[in-house]
Amino acid sequence: MVSETTPRNWQDLVAAKRRECEQKIPRDWLLSADQLVLAQENPRLLDIDLPRRCGLLSEVELDLTENYTASQLLIKLASGQVSSMAVTTAFCKRAAIAQQVISCLTETFFPQALERAKYLDEYLQREGKPIGPLHGLPISIKDSFCVEGVQTTIGFVAFLENEPAKTNSALVEMLLQLGAVLYVKTNIPQTMMTAESENNIFGRTLNPHKTTLGAGGSSGGEGALVAFRGSILGVGTDIAGSIRIPALCCGVYGFKPTTNRIPFGGQVSGAVRGVPGLIPAAGPLAHSIADLKLLMSSVVADGQAWKYDPSAVGVPWQTIPASTNANGSLTIGVLGEGKYFPLHPPVKRALDRAVEALTRAGHRIVRICGDDEAQSLAYASRVAFQYFEYGPRKDIIAASGEPAITSVAKNAGPMFSGPWAAQQGLGPFETILALHAARQRVDDAWRQIWVDQKLDVILAPGAQGTAVSHDTYGWPPYTVIWNVLDYPACIIPFGKASKELDPEPMTTGYDDSQPDYHPDEVDGAPCAIQVITPRFQDEKCLWAADIIDRVLAVYGEE
Amino acid sequence: MVSETTPRNWQDLVAAKRRECEQKIPRDWLLSADQLVLAQENPRLLDIDLPRRCGLLSEVELDLTENYTASQLLIKLASGQVSSMAVTTAFCKRAAIAQQVISCLTETFFPQALERAKYLDEYLQREGKPIGPLHGLPISIKDSFCVEGVQTTIGFVAFLENEPAKTNSALVEMLLQLGAVLYVKTNIPQTMMTAESENNIFGRTLNPHKTTLGAGGSSGGEGALVAFRGSILGVGTDIAGSIRIPALCCGVYGFKPTTNRIPFGGQVSGAVRGVPGLIPAAGPLAHSIADLKLLMSSVVADGQAWKYDPSAVGVPWQTIPASTNANGSLTIGVLGEGKYFPLHPPVKRALDRAVEALTRAGHRIVRICGDDEAQSLAYASRVAFQYFEYGPRKDIIAASGEPAITSVAKNAGPMFSGPWAAQQGLGPFETILALHAARQRVDDAWRQIWVDQKLDVILAPGAQGTAVSHDTYGWPPYTVIWNVLDYPACIIPFGKASKELDPEPMTTGYDDSQPDYHPDEVDGAPCAIQVITPRFQDEKCLWAADIIDRVLAVYGEE
Repeated sequence: MVSETTPRNWQDLVAAKRRECEQKIPRDWLLSADQLVLAQENPRLLDIDLPRRCGLLSEVELDLTENYTASQLLIKLASGQVSSMAVTTAFCKRAAIAQQVISCLTETFFPQALERAKYLDEYLQREGKPIGPLHGLPISIKDSFCVEGVQTTIGFVAFLENEPAKTNSALVEMLLQLGAVLYVKTNIPQTMMTAESENNIFGRTLNPHKTTLGAGGSSGGEGALVAFRGSILGVGTDIAGSIRIPALCCGVYGFKPTTNRIPFGGQVSGAVRGVPGLIPAAGPLAHSIADLKLLMSSVVADGQAWKYDPSAVGVPWQTIPASTNANGSLTIGVLGEGKYFPLHPPVKRALDRAVEALTRAGHRIVRICGDDEAQSLAYASRVAFQYFEYGPRKDIIAASGEPAITSVAKNAGPMFSGPWAAQQGLGPFETILALHAARQRVDDAWRQIWVDQKLDVILAPGAQGTAVSHDTYGWPPYTVIWNVLDYPACIIPFGKASKELDPEPMTTGYDDSQPDYHPDEVDGAPCAIQVITPRFQDEKCLWAADIIDRVLAVYGEE
Repeated sequence: MVSETTPRNWQDLVAAKRRECEQKIPRDWLLSADQLVLAQENPRLLDIDLPRRCGLLSEVELDLTENYTASQLLIKLASGQVSSMAVTTAFCKRAAIAQQVISCLTETFFPQALERAKYLDEYLQREGKPIGPLHGLPISIKDSFCVEGVQTTIGFVAFLENEPAKTNSALVEMLLQLGAVLYVKTNIPQTMMTAESENNIFGRTLNPHKTTLGAGGSSGGEGALVAFRGSILGVGTDIAGSIRIPALCCGVYGFKPTTNRIPFGGQVSGAVRGVPGLIPAAGPLAHSIADLKLLMSSVVADGQAWKYDPSAVGVPWQTIPASTNANGSLTIGVLGEGKYFPLHPPVKRALDRAVEALTRAGHRIVRICGDDEAQSLAYASRVAFQYFEYGPRKDIIAASGEPAITSVAKNAGPMFSGPWAAQQGLGPFETILALHAARQRVDDAWRQIWVDQKLDVILAPGAQGTAVSHDTYGWPPYTVIWNVLDYPACIIPFGKASKELDPEPMTTGYDDSQPDYHPDEVDGAPCAIQVITPRFQDEKCLWAADIIDRVLAVYGEE
């Protein structure tokens, strides 16, 4: 609540918060006015290589942030070959640069991060061994996670009056115990329920591949920061695609696990607590499958997550033997274009190329039509949309007087594709019962496909399009269906949109809220594929994604 | 619905069904009038050894039903040392005898069972190997499971008009694929929500240890049948104690796993579908921990249960290496008597002896007080009781005109112990939200105990008392708390009530619905302890239960 003695309008509150955030970036790490102009004039930000060009990072820092996986850095860190101070400083600097040009951060706590890095370096020197499997590694996290002493606003102006967090979220506590260094929290959309990471406090995150395009959401700050290599490994959350959409928009790897394999507890949320329905999952964004696996296997480990969060599933991470599938091929179900949600040509092209590559590599391809109602993207979308009516509280926006951001006001939905899954006019209790029944239909339909076709994995698009112009992403049918099913799903970046290869514009037709294909606008945007396994087969999903990723590297050339 | 052309009252429908059931027992397997009188005159039924005395079983059949674990029988079956026909015939006969004196069965399908046994014997001879890990083993199941071609009424007269099941429940399908032989379904209470397995169709199941006592419920037919050794391995379900109460009442082992580790789908239920709240778990009753493990590990196996039921958790069964704890001791939290629910002297004695034995064996004992509201039996009970208001539909009883059975009419509850967890007068949606918040409090309080005390397992009573006189079991606080937490829990039979050792009667005081201790009535009734681990630690629960069971065998003498 705003204090009674100093009434301030929401703009003043925001202005004060922004000043505070800006002042936390060390003066030495600020870009020059020229460099800022250069960034503004060059939407393809990654191409101008600002981190090198600006001169703020040493050669060693450029090397540390650009040339290793997290797993490789951990080996260097554990052996003392490189200090956590050096690695942390490098990523803090690079994140600070990213923030100045793509607004991907919310809170920064560089001094605390460097202090911790120093502590870890001293620990290693004193004890002769790392403190844990993530010793010294900087990890970025979505704003919704609480870090002791740091404010959590999730982009609601009304939450600017929140005290700094008194306790860590369960995952934050685990990451610290595993040896990680936390240094930044990352930007999100107001309500965390759109694919445009914009809010009235921290502004709009831009896509570093092309700043005229959205970075996706709700973990958009995370996707953009990782793409900029301001983070080697980040953690987002996903209830409709919020890890995978930023991953596919920003050209990085992203993994939505089965719910509660990564402890979710202790986050700040705008949703009503305890509403039965879809629940979000926390999971990693990174530059490689190996690093997705690193986060999953380190946190899940031998199943201790429940000690930090009683909702967490206390099941160990399974190691899939290297020998599995040594002589065999995967049976891959391909879910192509779904009715009402036509694919943009670059997405279709990426999927076709992937299928061709996998076929050439000897894997078995099974086409899945998904046309029956209970199997369709449209029906799962409508079930999810209706569950979400009981989700984020709009009154938190109203409380401060701030306006809804554009993508929230638009409220894109799938209702153009068919009737409500639970009839309208029922009370919330009866609606939930009806939605549960509808969700069970979807569950059973997909179980049947899986069993009938003897699938190992499903290969599917991650979205109708690539990253698109700001505020035009629309409803996410290709990601949300796997939330309805609670199936783990992995985004693998693959190829780029090209106006030369796909010169014809395309309208998606059915609804204004879904994005059309504009060859010029999205030219150069990353493309991606999605790999899916049934619930709780997180290990198999990443194992198969790794196989597929390697096939694409060998056979996937345009 | 009752056909319009032949209106019949509920008694006529029941009489017809009973005749049908009786006629399915082969004439050769009927007890003589003398034997029935003998059984009626001797409440301690197991002591008169009717199976031997009646002469219906051969020496081989007595041996097969009495002297082996299921695991041992499987070895004989797989090697062809004994045929499935022989084993199945033996258990069919013994179950038929049990039914005539303790009314533990609902449906029998002996001819189908013998036909399947014959098929399996031929398979083994032809193929030279068993069809699956449960090859040829008879397994009994609770009435709520559907077996193709067999009616499922769950004791509701209104369901007597149900067609025979057209498909198998998910677990039934799995058991058959694993090689099991199904031969009987077992009795339950009307509504499946009391601890007295009585209904107006199949009558009242009696406790074979003492027929004046209840067999427990809702899987009471299962408990009684296993105790009579009319089954070597049975499957029940448990939402408040429905596996564990019959186990402790009937002196057998019973295990309630984490929900959905055993596939639950495709059962008939009297509950409204999809109500968010406590959900039941299916699990085994048997004569040894080894056989509980056998059922769990065979069904869970490598995590394929989701292929039969999309709600099932696709997580493999973990093998805990034999070397674990080889040199160490368990840290055992002992949850003793809880406020409002005083323990009967024989139960207290059994727990004290167990603690003493475990101490002598070198294990570390930590006393858990459970006095804080969120940790208390009383609070968890009230949360559960309030969830159950949205559970079984009373209108199914009314539909046929049948009366409520005594234990249903009594509707024992824990509300004498404190206020509603969710305030009265809220709508169902708001009530569910409030109950979820209450349940989270319980979750977190117990997580904290576990972490603070570094527990391996909890040792607790299974109930206030032993089996008690019919219709007096009351509310089950010592079992239901682990349903609220979704913690796996195992009943180990241990000792017997003795009017010599505990001659003084005791009133439990707080509420009429909870049973008093009457030394004469319960003299000779089995006692038990309960072993509990956190959610998803089913493997560890059975592993620790095995260690504890062995300690009790060595050090647990009175």
